[in-house]
Amino acid sequence: MDEFELIRRYFVRPDDGKGVITGIGDDGAVLRPEPGRELVTVIDTLVEGTHFPSEMSAMDLGYRAVAVNLSDIAAMAARPLWMTLALTMPPRPDEWLDGFASGLFAAARDHDLALVGGDTTSGPCVVVSVQITGDVGAGAALLRSGAQPGDTVYVTGTVGDAAAGLSMMGSPDADEFLARRFLRPQARVQAGLALAGIASACIDVSDGLAGDLGKLLDASGVGADLNLDALPLSDAMAAAFDDDVGRRFAATGGDDYELCFTSSRSVPAEIGGVPVTAIGTVNDGDRLVCRSGGAVVEVDDSGYRHF
Amino acid sequence: MDEFELIRRYFVRPDDGKGVITGIGDDGAVLRPEPGRELVTVIDTLVEGTHFPSEMSAMDLGYRAVAVNLSDIAAMAARPLWMTLALTMPPRPDEWLDGFASGLFAAARDHDLALVGGDTTSGPCVVVSVQITGDVGAGAALLRSGAQPGDTVYVTGTVGDAAAGLSMMGSPDADEFLARRFLRPQARVQAGLALAGIASACIDVSDGLAGDLGKLLDASGVGADLNLDALPLSDAMAAAFDDDVGRRFAATGGDDYELCFTSSRSVPAEIGGVPVTAIGTVNDGDRLVCRSGGAVVEVDDSGYRHF
Repeated sequence: MDEFELIRRYFVRPDDGKGVITGIGDDGAVLRPEPGRELVTVIDTLVEGTHFPSEMSAMDLGYRAVAVNLSDIAAMAARPLWMTLALTMPPRPDEWLDGFASGLFAAARDHDLALVGGDTTSGPCVVVSVQITGDVGAGAALLRSGAQPGDTVYVTGTVGDAAAGLSMMGSPDADEFLARRFLRPQARVQAGLALAGIASACIDVSDGLAGDLGKLLDASGVGADLNLDALPLSDAMAAAFDDDVGRRFAATGGDDYELCFTSSRSVPAEIGGVPVTAIGTVNDGDRLVCRSGGAVVEVDDSGYRHF
Repeated sequence: MDEFELIRRYFVRPDDGKGVITGIGDDGAVLRPEPGRELVTVIDTLVEGTHFPSEMSAMDLGYRAVAVNLSDIAAMAARPLWMTLALTMPPRPDEWLDGFASGLFAAARDHDLALVGGDTTSGPCVVVSVQITGDVGAGAALLRSGAQPGDTVYVTGTVGDAAAGLSMMGSPDADEFLARRFLRPQARVQAGLALAGIASACIDVSDGLAGDLGKLLDASGVGADLNLDALPLSDAMAAAFDDDVGRRFAATGGDDYELCFTSSRSVPAEIGGVPVTAIGTVNDGDRLVCRSGGAVVEVDDSGYRHF
């Protein structure tokens, strides 16, 4: 099967995306932006062996490659519109591509996202880059740089689950909910859209809550106190791990794809269908200080330790 | 050097692109489309060992990764605006990244193209995906599907040079002009823009002239006669190869990134600063027939042979 046949068979679906004039099959896609709106573009790559284990199913991989990018779109309070795919892979059976495409389109369909172009190439391992363009009202994109001293820090959903799930993968005690949080991240697109006008700054939690919140604070030129005792843990996490371990996953584990945001306004307990928890306060300092039981705690990639 | 430092050091340049509101550094870029225009999006991947030899310089690779995408933008008669980069690579010295970024920005600068986002990841070999978005007037995108019986087939510049250059690479007789045609392809962006209103259909020559023209004909539902004797060969090709070999490179060699287009109108001898040559005629058949010395000639990937 040559590249063109492969694309036709697995990746061409009816062009029902918003504003898609010409989709896959020409030198490029032709797209019509909605008058008066601005565009938001994100790109994220998953490399076999670096970002996901080789034994991950093709369907989960296809889903995940889209979801991690949708999470960036969500963090900008944008509406997803169009996606392009660069897929590099060694020879794989047809079932692999079939599964990959199924996962990819499942994640896209949830958010009315159209695949408008791509390139499939052969290489020594699987490398998937997905690029998504969305749109926002003029001036309404939610940046990392708007946090102000006095704002409250919030996070959606529960954190640490994906890292906990990944740590158990392949073990007989593996928890299905936690594994699925890694394999099938749910981008908080509806929550992101609902944050427009509420949040002052936002970032998605992909590299670990403390590290990602640190980036938001740097971009805003502020500091914050983070209350580790307030981090929302899932029931599955609480059942599978001691509280200390669970909180370490929550503070430093990656791949949750929840939204961490700041706001000076009154924030409802649930946004876009997902619970929201206050976890800290922005101040006029220049760093993130984590606290637990009233004491300052140092958090780093290998966990956190009490002074 | 972590990913963030790497991006800051090599890939963040002043945001002077058209319509760039927020560039690299947030979860996504924020871009303002020009009212009333449509967008054209293209993506192309280069894999080490598949699309380029490992000994290719980082600077040439950076340049080439942008140029091959600009060529798709040119084939749509679009104006390049914004670029995202997904770069996967094994550990490389700083000089490699410095060279890669220099080549990338050199190709971008020629066309006022801004790098607005990207992702750098580690992997077993170099994989570069560049995605470019440009714009066109509403309804003005030049597709593959508009060729009509009676149209003349044209090609810009000279063809076969890149494949000839690649075939000589590393040899003591290597011709510098031909090698450079492979290493530093010049996307015909100005020619593409000038083709709006002149051409009925267009494709860029990346996989070989006969094959790419065949795709244009398929998309248009027509056939064509291609006059192999009319294919424009460079002086360097004529000096380095016998005429038969040169015409085989011209008909089937890839990587030229010239534009092949059809038109029923009067076409000037030079478009967008590049010479244009008539090489065939569209008919109401359903296939491409190649002729040389009046006789039908079969062209395939391994060359062409007389009946």
